[in-house]
Amino acid sequence: MTYRQLIARFGTPAAALQAVPDLARRGGGKAPALRSRSDAEREIAQVDKLGAKFLSLGQGLYPRLLAELEDAPPLLIARGDLTLLDRQAVAIVGARNASAAACRFARGLAHDLGQEGLVVVSGLARGIDSAAHDGALDTGTIAVVAGGIDIFYPPENEARQTALYERGLVLAEMPPGTEPRARHFPYRNRIIAGIASATVVVEAAPKSGSLITARLAAEAGREVMAVPGSPLDPRAQGCNQLIRDGATLIQGARDVIDELRPMEARVASSPSAFEPAPAEEPDESLLSTIESLLGPSPAPVDEIIRLSGASAGAVQMALLELDLAGRLDRHAGNKVSLKDA
Amino acid sequence: MTYRQLIARFGTPAAALQAVPDLARRGGGKAPALRSRSDAEREIAQVDKLGAKFLSLGQGLYPRLLAELEDAPPLLIARGDLTLLDRQAVAIVGARNASAAACRFARGLAHDLGQEGLVVVSGLARGIDSAAHDGALDTGTIAVVAGGIDIFYPPENEARQTALYERGLVLAEMPPGTEPRARHFPYRNRIIAGIASATVVVEAAPKSGSLITARLAAEAGREVMAVPGSPLDPRAQGCNQLIRDGATLIQGARDVIDELRPMEARVASSPSAFEPAPAEEPDESLLSTIESLLGPSPAPVDEIIRLSGASAGAVQMALLELDLAGRLDRHAGNKVSLKDA
Repeated sequence: MTYRQLIARFGTPAAALQAVPDLARRGGGKAPALRSRSDAEREIAQVDKLGAKFLSLGQGLYPRLLAELEDAPPLLIARGDLTLLDRQAVAIVGARNASAAACRFARGLAHDLGQEGLVVVSGLARGIDSAAHDGALDTGTIAVVAGGIDIFYPPENEARQTALYERGLVLAEMPPGTEPRARHFPYRNRIIAGIASATVVVEAAPKSGSLITARLAAEAGREVMAVPGSPLDPRAQGCNQLIRDGATLIQGARDVIDELRPMEARVASSPSAFEPAPAEEPDESLLSTIESLLGPSPAPVDEIIRLSGASAGAVQMALLELDLAGRLDRHAGNKVSLKDA
Repeated sequence: MTYRQLIARFGTPAAALQAVPDLARRGGGKAPALRSRSDAEREIAQVDKLGAKFLSLGQGLYPRLLAELEDAPPLLIARGDLTLLDRQAVAIVGARNASAAACRFARGLAHDLGQEGLVVVSGLARGIDSAAHDGALDTGTIAVVAGGIDIFYPPENEARQTALYERGLVLAEMPPGTEPRARHFPYRNRIIAGIASATVVVEAAPKSGSLITARLAAEAGREVMAVPGSPLDPRAQGCNQLIRDGATLIQGARDVIDELRPMEARVASSPSAFEPAPAEEPDESLLSTIESLLGPSPAPVDEIIRLSGASAGAVQMALLELDLAGRLDRHAGNKVSLKDA
């Protein structure tokens, strides 16, 4: 989000980079450590050597639906068939320890959606994710990985990931060489949800990562669908709860496609979300007003704007300055809080 | 419905019985064969000897929610604990060939609902119905049977049915001695749905009798709930479809009770549906107008009223006359058609 706001304010990455130290000082902190030009050039060479490409937010190849997210990644690293990004996609996600029956269902669903021309997106995890990629390998599937594009994770998926480089597409947000950590997975999940018109959850326990993906999809205004199961099976309870909360119950590809139809129109007509907004310089007093309105609990940005009495543009700039000074945390649902001093 | 309209027109069963031959003649048919007084007295004696009671529509012991149905049975025969009719009830229905897991779920759900003070209603069939009665035997359960109150059906449920006479309640619409036939089951199902505030379907295949009960419950304005299952299990597909169509997904008693709360208020405040409406004599020309508006396909009574240009009361009387003359078929959703000549 910081990147997006900097571009909105300064037009180009180069101009934004120049402005960052000054903005951070205004926000009351030290300038963030930026990567050096030589580091960046080394990474570009590395990506090139891996046979991968950068996709940049706001440019042609970048996934259009993903660009609608307020926290869309500025850069993605992609290896494989980039034409898959031009087709409508459905995410299929679920439990790593899914039942054999659910994996069979996911594979069949992916296959059937592929036959209908849809690309299947998933996270290359064990269980449902792997089954979904397998089912759509012949028709088109995209894996979003949590670590670097060149890291095989989980290790037993090396052959599957290699097949996806050659016959599908692998996307990563982290730089090459990054080992995936627990904190990376929710970021990865927002990309899965963001690329897809709809997210289908197949067997997920309560509080599982798949439900995070479903929540992110819902927050992005995408369809959330879930495959039901017996309440006696704990692995089905997350999906059943999703359905209770409004997700569409899915019994097969036909149900998914029936829900997608109206979506296609939306996708075709939605404007690019990457439109720079006019920005305003906040004065010093606004910055201190906003600091006093913020606390350690996340508060909606809309509320901060309303309470501050200033324009949305000025408040966003003040928040950006606090952010670059390392003093702001951003949360889901466009909420912000002040970092503990 | 005919009974209810006759009472609305003539006030008492005795006055209605006297009027029937004349009404039928006006409707263009022969007077229907009415049972003789001695037949009726024999049936009353038989019911008495079985230790059962008659419950009459419009009188005190008759189930209040059932009386709201436009096609509520004029008479029910009841054997067992009549106080169960005073408590809020939930129907649990499902497949006769249900899986062991689903039967276990139904028994547990019935038990838990019973612990919350709810009476469990079902149809004493094999599978889910039997499990539901078993789970609620200690707290209160009502079986509605398709045949006579004294007929053990299915035969292997003799011990269960006997236990229900002693510790629960059995209801029948058909006279004693009636062997249940296929056509009786939908009538039985409307009583199950009509007694209960909510109907929960546990494992039901598409096009099964349990889905008829669910439809009748929805038509009566009651809550419809369903227990989901894997799409790979054909026995779950009916329930899954119900949920897709708007039924509440249920994972346990808590989910049922959460949906019922607002219902309680409705039940307490709903007026008796058994209120005689003012009736009007239709003239001969209206009768022929209505005959010409009717055909072999079911048409909504509201539409007939509108097209006839006559009052609702006059049209209802004309339909009643056609009905008593054996020339009218009544269908769900307040639709009527002319019988083939």
